[in-house]
Amino acid sequence: MNYDGYLSRAAVMMRESAIRKMGAVSARVPDVISLAPGYPSPDTFPWQDFRHITDGLLGARDASTLQYGPTRGFRPLLDAIRGVLRGRGIEASLEELLVTTGSQQGLDLVARVLLDPGDVALVELPAYTGAMAAFRNVQAELAGVRQDADGIDLDDLDRVMASLRAEGKRVRFLYVVPNFQNPTGLLLAREKRRQLLDAARRHDILLVEDDPYGELYFSDVAEESDTRPIKADDLDGRVVYLSSFSKTLAPGYRVAWIAAPSALAAKFEIAKQATDICTGALDQRVVWQAIERGVLAAQGPRLRTVYQHKRTVMERALQQHAGGLLTWPKPRGGFFVWVTAPAAIDSEALLSRAMRHGVLFVVGSAFFVDGSGRNTLRLAFSAPSPERIEEGVRRLSAALHEELETLRQGVGSAGTSAVGTGGASSGTVTPTG
Amino acid sequence: MNYDGYLSRAAVMMRESAIRKMGAVSARVPDVISLAPGYPSPDTFPWQDFRHITDGLLGARDASTLQYGPTRGFRPLLDAIRGVLRGRGIEASLEELLVTTGSQQGLDLVARVLLDPGDVALVELPAYTGAMAAFRNVQAELAGVRQDADGIDLDDLDRVMASLRAEGKRVRFLYVVPNFQNPTGLLLAREKRRQLLDAARRHDILLVEDDPYGELYFSDVAEESDTRPIKADDLDGRVVYLSSFSKTLAPGYRVAWIAAPSALAAKFEIAKQATDICTGALDQRVVWQAIERGVLAAQGPRLRTVYQHKRTVMERALQQHAGGLLTWPKPRGGFFVWVTAPAAIDSEALLSRAMRHGVLFVVGSAFFVDGSGRNTLRLAFSAPSPERIEEGVRRLSAALHEELETLRQGVGSAGTSAVGTGGASSGTVTPTG
Repeated sequence: MNYDGYLSRAAVMMRESAIRKMGAVSARVPDVISLAPGYPSPDTFPWQDFRHITDGLLGARDASTLQYGPTRGFRPLLDAIRGVLRGRGIEASLEELLVTTGSQQGLDLVARVLLDPGDVALVELPAYTGAMAAFRNVQAELAGVRQDADGIDLDDLDRVMASLRAEGKRVRFLYVVPNFQNPTGLLLAREKRRQLLDAARRHDILLVEDDPYGELYFSDVAEESDTRPIKADDLDGRVVYLSSFSKTLAPGYRVAWIAAPSALAAKFEIAKQATDICTGALDQRVVWQAIERGVLAAQGPRLRTVYQHKRTVMERALQQHAGGLLTWPKPRGGFFVWVTAPAAIDSEALLSRAMRHGVLFVVGSAFFVDGSGRNTLRLAFSAPSPERIEEGVRRLSAALHEELETLRQGVGSAGTSAVGTGGASSGTVTPTG
Repeated sequence: MNYDGYLSRAAVMMRESAIRKMGAVSARVPDVISLAPGYPSPDTFPWQDFRHITDGLLGARDASTLQYGPTRGFRPLLDAIRGVLRGRGIEASLEELLVTTGSQQGLDLVARVLLDPGDVALVELPAYTGAMAAFRNVQAELAGVRQDADGIDLDDLDRVMASLRAEGKRVRFLYVVPNFQNPTGLLLAREKRRQLLDAARRHDILLVEDDPYGELYFSDVAEESDTRPIKADDLDGRVVYLSSFSKTLAPGYRVAWIAAPSALAAKFEIAKQATDICTGALDQRVVWQAIERGVLAAQGPRLRTVYQHKRTVMERALQQHAGGLLTWPKPRGGFFVWVTAPAAIDSEALLSRAMRHGVLFVVGSAFFVDGSGRNTLRLAFSAPSPERIEEGVRRLSAALHEELETLRQGVGSAGTSAVGTGGASSGTVTPTG
């Protein structure tokens, strides 16, 4: 049977992502070092605390621990999240909160509640692919806004808005990751955060603020106050704020949350009802206990140290092996180094070659809604050990030198067949960090 | 700020469900007995096994246990699910399988991959509200097909199809729960299952077969072979089959699955990527171990005994307290007794009165896409203890007698204000069993 005729228009447009193809490659190639996915470092997971907490929960045999639960989330967890938010300068009532099954579900709920087919969602250039996929899956259109070294370019926002309005488009929101953005690692400047609120008011759009990495600032180049969420100064109720425990506790528990104006939170709740009824009851209780017992609070300093070190190792290796060839903005937090290669480099071709050298990354073009970024790449330093990061960068640099040599000789690139070029050209985007 | 202008058309149509309102009422009223939600009985959860399994998993500290994982699901769990399916007569390859975050996510993926706005999904009269909500949330239209005592009325299916085609409507699939249907508890006759496959071929539609209750047959009036899924005889690849561990292990782990033609499974996977990336890693491993260690297999006989007894207790109580007034098809499995009250009864009014007597149920009209079923109610015997079931039915019967007496005196009903009439009239539907 051929199923093409049975698919929705949204399904017809869905494409397998470049990263997923790479995931399969990664499983086939022995000893490959993957700098591709934005996975947290598993040795930072508080295993012993989780074990102790879970044993206590299952031992207590409270029926609700393994039962269906309220769609909004487990009440004590919601209360604990209020405390976490307060620590970030955000006062949220229970009516404004919703637990989600990972932040990806939050993005999906945002898409479904706020976007009609043909509506425009603004995203950064480049932007997190999982958000773009969620918005595209409701057949919204995406438009990109450029970024400077200190985050989104507000003048470009004005230009893009004017141009879209002139075309008669309905722009619903700007999706923004102010803290250590995925994929660039950029930190949005403090004054720009307030200006962004003004701009949102002026253009009458909402801001969807995604903040998975805020707690992971690196003390050598950033401080906590740099990460103050836009939502903390949102007097009008223009900001839908998403955050998650995936990067601070563990992504295996699918627990994240949305803080939004209560009228929108109520809609997210109803949309979530028909999406997965509720987030896992045990997962929510484990996270709640991890907050109550101070496990989450203890994670912060530890994670900042671990990831800052890995960032330093990656930067040092890049400098050593490819200094002068590659450039990147210094990551002040988060998981990623955003690399620009010489203009002659096609990162798809580089990836093919890198795979033969036993290293993977994500081609930068996958993050650009406008198809640009051909010579960019995203390197994640979060998951591999420092030794593997160093070796991975060494391999990548070898591949880069080889590719440049080939280009210099005019032989042409290594081709892209092994990886496919599904990335930007087909409008494909991909989630998971 | 008023957010009405920011909502998608789908969001504007979303309404809070009658059941959720009842949930809030239930929390307010002390000692209320809820026969409303289709929750499994928590004393059937294999607590000790879960505790032991989880402790082993967290103790082993395999990084993948708490990490992001493949969207398709944890490979050993997928293999184990193949074994579960084989036990039901279904041969499924890995390419045809996908783990979902509860079956509700499966329904949502089905909706998103198979339905465009304006497309028609056929559902049974009455049908599971969570499915209807998922289909409506992508702005599909629903059309109802009548049921006989042995399940869906195939002649009515032909009539409905003819009428929809005459209107130029595009019908994509029929959603059907053949085993102990929610809300009626009906078992689709064996010969009708094959006829349904023929009808699907003839009408060129797919079948979405939802099978959460198949293992819960009651041996006094049914046998395992009665529950053979339609999918087991699906030679063409017309059936998308959904099932879950929520009723056999525990719903607190959000682990369910879809078995579908590989071309569709691939689309479900891509849709799921942007929905929640992956189902919880630890949850999947716990379920996998529960299958491997024989915990799931041991649950079957135990659950059948427990729920059959509860069914018997509820039927006996109904007979004793309201025999002659209420009628219902004998449940041959599952969680529900589907009750028809005298024609004069409005179940919304009855519910208001029942609440004052300290008992809750779900008004039947919530399950009817055509707004009918005014004098029907769904009673779930799954969660409460036998003693509470008996007392709940006693209270319900007292409310019924009082309501009938009031009607007889021409005083009029007790009104519906306390519960609201959001149910069928506003097209509202509600998930969670």
